Amino acid sequence: MRKFNRPLPGDIRTADPVFAERIKVCIAETIPATMRKTVETGRLDAFKLNWKEGDKNKPHIFWDSDTAKVLEGMAYCLALNPDPELEKNYDEWVELICSAQQEDGYLNTYFTRIESEKRWAYLSWGHELYCAGHLIEAAVAGYECLGKRKLLDCICRYADYIDSVFGLEEGKRRGWPGHEEIELALIKLYRVTGNKRYLKLASYFVNDRGTEPNVFKTEIGEANWDGGQNLQAHRPVREQDSAVGHAVRAVYLYAGMADVADEENDVALLEVCECLFEDIRQHKMYITGGIGSGFAGEKFTIPYDLTNSSLMYAESCATIGLAQFAIRMFNITGNNKYLDVAELALYNGALSGISTRGDTYFYTNYLEVDDNLVTYNSGAKVRQPWFACSCCPTSFARFIPQLGTFLWSAGDNEIAMNIPAACHADLKLKDGRRVSCQVEGDYPYDGKIRITMETAGNYRLLLRIPSWCKQYTVTMNGKTTDSVIQRNWDIGDVVELNLEMPVSVIRSNTKITGNNGRIALKRGPVVYALEQIDQQVPVRETLIDIDGGFRLFRDLPGLPEGTVGITGKAVHEYFQDSNALYTDEPPTREDVPFKAIPYALWQNRGDGNMAIWLRAK
Amino acid sequence: MRKFNRPLPGDIRTADPVFAERIKVCIAETIPATMRKTVETGRLDAFKLNWKEGDKNKPHIFWDSDTAKVLEGMAYCLALNPDPELEKNYDEWVELICSAQQEDGYLNTYFTRIESEKRWAYLSWGHELYCAGHLIEAAVAGYECLGKRKLLDCICRYADYIDSVFGLEEGKRRGWPGHEEIELALIKLYRVTGNKRYLKLASYFVNDRGTEPNVFKTEIGEANWDGGQNLQAHRPVREQDSAVGHAVRAVYLYAGMADVADEENDVALLEVCECLFEDIRQHKMYITGGIGSGFAGEKFTIPYDLTNSSLMYAESCATIGLAQFAIRMFNITGNNKYLDVAELALYNGALSGISTRGDTYFYTNYLEVDDNLVTYNSGAKVRQPWFACSCCPTSFARFIPQLGTFLWSAGDNEIAMNIPAACHADLKLKDGRRVSCQVEGDYPYDGKIRITMETAGNYRLLLRIPSWCKQYTVTMNGKTTDSVIQRNWDIGDVVELNLEMPVSVIRSNTKITGNNGRIALKRGPVVYALEQIDQQVPVRETLIDIDGGFRLFRDLPGLPEGTVGITGKAVHEYFQDSNALYTDEPPTREDVPFKAIPYALWQNRGDGNMAIWLRAK
Repeated sequence: MRKFNRPLPGDIRTADPVFAERIKVCIAETIPATMRKTVETGRLDAFKLNWKEGDKNKPHIFWDSDTAKVLEGMAYCLALNPDPELEKNYDEWVELICSAQQEDGYLNTYFTRIESEKRWAYLSWGHELYCAGHLIEAAVAGYECLGKRKLLDCICRYADYIDSVFGLEEGKRRGWPGHEEIELALIKLYRVTGNKRYLKLASYFVNDRGTEPNVFKTEIGEANWDGGQNLQAHRPVREQDSAVGHAVRAVYLYAGMADVADEENDVALLEVCECLFEDIRQHKMYITGGIGSGFAGEKFTIPYDLTNSSLMYAESCATIGLAQFAIRMFNITGNNKYLDVAELALYNGALSGISTRGDTYFYTNYLEVDDNLVTYNSGAKVRQPWFACSCCPTSFARFIPQLGTFLWSAGDNEIAMNIPAACHADLKLKDGRRVSCQVEGDYPYDGKIRITMETAGNYRLLLRIPSWCKQYTVTMNGKTTDSVIQRNWDIGDVVELNLEMPVSVIRSNTKITGNNGRIALKRGPVVYALEQIDQQVPVRETLIDIDGGFRLFRDLPGLPEGTVGITGKAVHEYFQDSNALYTDEPPTREDVPFKAIPYALWQNRGDGNMAIWLRAK
Repeated sequence: MRKFNRPLPGDIRTADPVFAERIKVCIAETIPATMRKTVETGRLDAFKLNWKEGDKNKPHIFWDSDTAKVLEGMAYCLALNPDPELEKNYDEWVELICSAQQEDGYLNTYFTRIESEKRWAYLSWGHELYCAGHLIEAAVAGYECLGKRKLLDCICRYADYIDSVFGLEEGKRRGWPGHEEIELALIKLYRVTGNKRYLKLASYFVNDRGTEPNVFKTEIGEANWDGGQNLQAHRPVREQDSAVGHAVRAVYLYAGMADVADEENDVALLEVCECLFEDIRQHKMYITGGIGSGFAGEKFTIPYDLTNSSLMYAESCATIGLAQFAIRMFNITGNNKYLDVAELALYNGALSGISTRGDTYFYTNYLEVDDNLVTYNSGAKVRQPWFACSCCPTSFARFIPQLGTFLWSAGDNEIAMNIPAACHADLKLKDGRRVSCQVEGDYPYDGKIRITMETAGNYRLLLRIPSWCKQYTVTMNGKTTDSVIQRNWDIGDVVELNLEMPVSVIRSNTKITGNNGRIALKRGPVVYALEQIDQQVPVRETLIDIDGGFRLFRDLPGLPEGTVGITGKAVHEYFQDSNALYTDEPPTREDVPFKAIPYALWQNRGDGNMAIWLRAK
């Protein structure tokens, strides 16, 4: 069904000011740091299955997922940047993980060593199938990117075993993953192995979910049953029309549903995915692409409930998950609206979750931070190197090296430039032909893009025109043309895309009550924020002069080279009596300049207040 | 030490458009309704001490306080409005309560019937001394207002017993109330009995609190100890300089501290009270007088953390407690700043907690409600008839009939008009002489007040000029004079006070970040709000034209007669594409009128959105 294939991480070599820099830092810092933490905290050693009462580092139900995610990231980084030392570590990790596999194929440290009698007994909250999913993704990554079979073979045995346990057939039991993930992982496994068993199992997990009698309700018991919305199991997935519950779980499920719909040519299921995506895009997404605004339960709340601080969440993993869901929907349908969301999430709400040094992370991605606002996620105003529940750091370890895979897609005799960031792309068409090209430019900080084709032949080049772009030009060897170019390409043909990228003043739906009277600055796909360190007066007292003209500047020491800031006129509004709690004194106003930086880069030059949604003069 | 005595509820007969109406409704509705609930829920029958496993209505640790509070309210209402049927009920309740007293004087249904072995074992969270405090207040009310001794005698025995248990003397144990209340109650008991033992016990509870070794820490255990801030026991009260922890507990303690300081001429302790009051007034109080902004823990958070919805609290009981603390501080010091806060809390954050019908209540007093804002206190957008933890309804039962006692104070040869609401005041000077007068006018909706003196003689009349008032005049029998009038009064002398009362546009400290760019309308002591039912366009899309002029109006069907609204010009700001979540479309603006009502009266004509802090055009 799908229109496009997604390239492998190694197929795209980024050379832009954002992704290339992040990938470089990931290889140099994030992978070593998360590997170290995985070892130090006992997550890797858990696979030795020798933990005993009294030992430190008691294995936890979700630990295997962290190890698997870091391993997956190691594979991608090795594909991008061969490194014998890292490869040696990789092989040792795989060795150890495989050694924990049980006779019957089962592979889970917690439910082997700690609560072996509870295997498959806590489906709703045990993270057992979730951990399996991440092990599958890691195994597929190692095979696809490095050609290594050891973990893949091991994990196929595990998947075969899981398939022997779950399903509607006689001799099997019904069961669903409490935290979805295995659905999309099984599709990956199906794609590399061609074994339809995995597709069928993924399809079972998707299609049985939420049907009666409800597996989770039976497990949790009538008395404690909350309706199942948190686990997206309140009704069959085909009857779901609103994004609900734990946001990471939700978008992982939706991504898996999209994959199953794709592989099974299931148009009805794809329509459900589209409906859920639209509910997120139209009602439940921050301007940054952040989702899951409810701190309590890390979840989707009601439409338009998108507060900027205190109670908000927008977990890094959820935003990354949204990008992964969106890119799948684009590759299946070819509809650019999915890329608009993927791009927004990537440049803003996802990358905000990791420091420019690549070694600290946000769980919660606040849109506003102020000394006088309580944040209910304590300590969350400053990125942390690790968490007890450390899904976000390990998500970045595997997500950052995948950034290139969002840039291009390859279809049936056509290639699509999704995000025009500078890179070298080596793409495999559906017929197996490879097409490569070089993209140059300064995107996302500049809209001028130059593409030099390196493969001759007849194929189509699709250039996405982002929805934020109102005016653009395309030239082919200097002559104006369209954003879809089909021709007999010569090596060295040059296509130039020029996306006009003025500073936009964004307002939000009046139903997001806290944003009323406020504006945000956005340029291209990049959302800007005022960080206190750059201002002469408090962020909270700064009113942007939206008619005063904006200028771009590049002098931002401490931020990645090439970062473009926005400066302009503002008004400092304050009270003469700054101590009064309430006053009938009219405020005083004085002109000041302001400086805005890309939101994703805040809190990299010390701690301080920050806001995206600003008052306008 | 104290400058003024507070009158008894029966001494002040209100005749104004707010308090008189509320008291009338309280007598007719609130008292019967809360009595009914007290009976229906088993709270009264708990005193039969015959509950057994399997019965419904298992007594709860704080139930006695609810019964006592309703009983206290019954006494005040009987003083204001004799009613044989109610008095019969009153006597029966007292009979039943007294019958539950144990041989040694102990009187607590839960720790007699349910966990008798745990007497005094859960001081931190057991509410045992808190319940005792409310029983004492009820007993004092019955004696002072109705001359009934039965409960007073019973409760003196209980207080004597408590005194025999707690203290620093040999044979006693150290112990503090987890929920403060008994301190101020013991002072009341001391004042009506003259028995210094009660003063000493109150003083002990105040002065030992927070000293080492910490009683609560010992009880709760090192492992679960949170530092004691929630219970205001983190350090000795004399070393406290910031209002912290559970807000109701805090202001009850501070009121008790003020009472002890007063009776013991303890200037240093009074200074602590002043410091704590100032911390609240300057940093932690809503424009409504609401306090305790943190939903989690019903508590004070950090300075300026005063959000208007979702996470906020401002419990009705806390605001009432602040008014009770403030009126004590005024009566002790004579400093009008305390009256400014008391008045603000009374007319706004306290009265907002009860419906105009007097039968439903808010626990949380939101400053903004919108369909699109999640409220973490579920169901709290609509007043409820009762709660599992039903402190707020029973607080109103005893608070509303006390409203008159805030209006006047009587000192040594002087009487002070604190709040110029229409009433008949019959005041007892410190030397025992009685002075009476009649106040006429439409306050708080009009600033013209006429006082007719009914008692001849030489004494001083003090007229408070509220801090919100910038211009005023006072005349004595038609001749201009000062706000302090000392003279030989003749019966029939007329003093006229004219407080100018324009509509004020209030802004808040920029550190309350969510209020930046917003204004509130206030007139005299009354804070106004926009309720959806009165508007032509959504509240959230209404921008007030603060330079467009304001008009007053009285046509507000469904609200108490005489209620004054504010109308004026506004702008409806909206987007042509009302579905877009984010847009670069500039908003459309159209002129509309707006109507504002007193905040305390919202949600009396159906449910709907409401906001105090509004955007200005």
